[in-house]
Amino acid sequence: MDIAILGTGLVGRTLAGRFAELGHTVTVGTRDPQATLARTGEGEFGDWAAQHRAVGIATFADAVGAAELVVNATNGGASLDVLALTGPHGLAGKVLMDVANPLDVTHGLPPTLFVKDTDSLGERIQRAYPAARVVKALNTVNAMVMAHPEVLPEPGTVFICGNNQDAKATVTTLLAELGHRDIIDLGDITGARGTEMMIPVWVRLWGALGGPAFNFKVVR
Amino acid sequence: MDIAILGTGLVGRTLAGRFAELGHTVTVGTRDPQATLARTGEGEFGDWAAQHRAVGIATFADAVGAAELVVNATNGGASLDVLALTGPHGLAGKVLMDVANPLDVTHGLPPTLFVKDTDSLGERIQRAYPAARVVKALNTVNAMVMAHPEVLPEPGTVFICGNNQDAKATVTTLLAELGHRDIIDLGDITGARGTEMMIPVWVRLWGALGGPAFNFKVVR
Repeated sequence: MDIAILGTGLVGRTLAGRFAELGHTVTVGTRDPQATLARTGEGEFGDWAAQHRAVGIATFADAVGAAELVVNATNGGASLDVLALTGPHGLAGKVLMDVANPLDVTHGLPPTLFVKDTDSLGERIQRAYPAARVVKALNTVNAMVMAHPEVLPEPGTVFICGNNQDAKATVTTLLAELGHRDIIDLGDITGARGTEMMIPVWVRLWGALGGPAFNFKVVR
Repeated sequence: MDIAILGTGLVGRTLAGRFAELGHTVTVGTRDPQATLARTGEGEFGDWAAQHRAVGIATFADAVGAAELVVNATNGGASLDVLALTGPHGLAGKVLMDVANPLDVTHGLPPTLFVKDTDSLGERIQRAYPAARVVKALNTVNAMVMAHPEVLPEPGTVFICGNNQDAKATVTTLLAELGHRDIIDLGDITGARGTEMMIPVWVRLWGALGGPAFNFKVVR
């Protein structure tokens, strides 16, 4: 599948590398590809790209143009601004897998959420791009657990929600390729209120457990 | 231990019956004990009390008076009003295990939360009763899983948080008696923001799974 990843941070890179490894055609979208590649040194994108030559890099609009599936791996606070750079019709008909969280760190740590309870980032994105088929997914685990769930001693649960069944089926297949074995469909995109509101306990668990390598398994 | 349960609903009854079964001295607090006992018929408190004679019933103030540990099993929206009926010093020094959730159903279903993210019901209770030792616990599972975690095919996780270590140790012992095997301490009472905000996904999971018999296990 032709996949565009929006976001050059840890989540974007980890998913890009893993999807390429699984045989997909992956392009990372960024504002200015040359500037992004010029950032070299330990932990910078240029060095990462040199080690992941199978992954393409392009402007947001170009990356999205050829893609069947687009991953929103941007910072939640920047997501709507970045998606606007894909052009007025760039996302129409695409499956848009939204893994971002509406984190607000302007008041310090722990982060709060800038939208919650009666609305969600997933819904805001779906409303802004009604012709896109938004599926909220993977926002309840960190980058490593997203891409390599087998790092945990037993399978956890991941959640999907969205208004389009075909889009959810596509995302489910992709999550299974990543190794996720327990995928629960929470219904329409308003389910994003639920999964985004898991972040406050996730942040506190990180503190309590001393690291982000964990997941929630729904025992039933 | 002498335990007062505030709340005559399903959660209050289930915990009261189970704590009595475990050998504790349990008193359910209510506004008007005679009126509560006079409610007879299928599913009413009078019938339940007749089948659970080891459980006492008293006014809120009297129930709390003798108790070492008080369980807030009231409806979240009524919790502060009910706690006020325990008298100005009734809760001083007590361990107050708060299992309530700040559910707002005034706008229909699914419920939203009337406090969240930058505050929580647990914190409101602790601020209103600074001499009480509030421990938020068990609010992420339904009454049956609270009292009989062994109904699930494998142990899930329950969370505690609060400002007083001794109070958390007391609650941890009690949770272990109920059968909970994985109890994670999220830190001070602000951790209640995290566990209370798990309710929106919990509600959607109830729908997706077709019932409330589930729990979150933190796999790590």
